[in-house]
Amino acid sequence: MADYLGIHILLELHECPADRLRLPGDSERILLAAAAAMGATIVESRFHAFSPHGVSGVVVIAESHLTVHTWPEYGYAAVDVFSCGQLDLEAGLAILREGFGAAQTEQQTFRRGRLPVTRGHR
Amino acid sequence: MADYLGIHILLELHECPADRLRLPGDSERILLAAAAAMGATIVESRFHAFSPHGVSGVVVIAESHLTVHTWPEYGYAAVDVFSCGQLDLEAGLAILREGFGAAQTEQQTFRRGRLPVTRGHR
Repeated sequence: MADYLGIHILLELHECPADRLRLPGDSERILLAAAAAMGATIVESRFHAFSPHGVSGVVVIAESHLTVHTWPEYGYAAVDVFSCGQLDLEAGLAILREGFGAAQTEQQTFRRGRLPVTRGHR
Repeated sequence: MADYLGIHILLELHECPADRLRLPGDSERILLAAAAAMGATIVESRFHAFSPHGVSGVVVIAESHLTVHTWPEYGYAAVDVFSCGQLDLEAGLAILREGFGAAQTEQQTFRRGRLPVTRGHR
C-alpha cells in the first residue's frame, strides 16, 4: 500500500451568514478552535482584513496548516486543512462547518507526498 | 459558464536536493520570488524550521496565499498556490520548480468558490 506524508482537505463553505465572514477575529477564533479540536500543536496564527471586505488567515500548526479566505458578499469561505500528523480531522471539520454556519458544504480530500515504495521508505 | 472566485494549485515537488529543503530562509526566498514573479501583492511571510528537520512557511498575498512544507529526508516539498486575482501563475510555478530543484513534479489545479449562476452574481 502506498504511503503518504500528509493529508489535505479542501473545504468549501457556502451559504454562510455574511456576519461571520467579515471580521478577522471571528475567523481566527473558529480556526484556532478547529485546530485545538483536532489535537494540533498551534505554532502561530495570522489573520488579515481586506478591503472592501473579506478575511485571509492562516494557522500554522506543527503538523502543517489551516487557512481560510472569506467572501462575505457571497457567503463563501474557502478553508484548507493540511495535516502531516495523526490528528482528529473530523472533529476540526465539524467546528469549521458549524463555526462559519455553512448551510452547504463540499469537501475534497487529497493525499500529499506519496512515498516511492521501491525505495523502502518507512 | 460557471464562474469561480479562486484557483488553487497543489504542487508536488519530488526529488529535490535535500539541502534546498532544510533552511526556512531558502524556502522563504523561493516563495517570495514566486509571488513576485506572479505579480502578487505580498502582505507578509512567516517561515518556521521544525525538529529534527523540515520547513513550514506561508506567504500571505492580497490575492490569497502560497504555502510550503518540506521533508528534506524524502527530497519532497508540498507547495500550494491559491489565488483569487489575475496573476501570472505559470511564472510563479516555474520559479517554485526551479528554486527547489525538483526533478519530478505533479500539479493539480482546482477552482474554488463556484458562484451559483442562477443568482446572477457577476
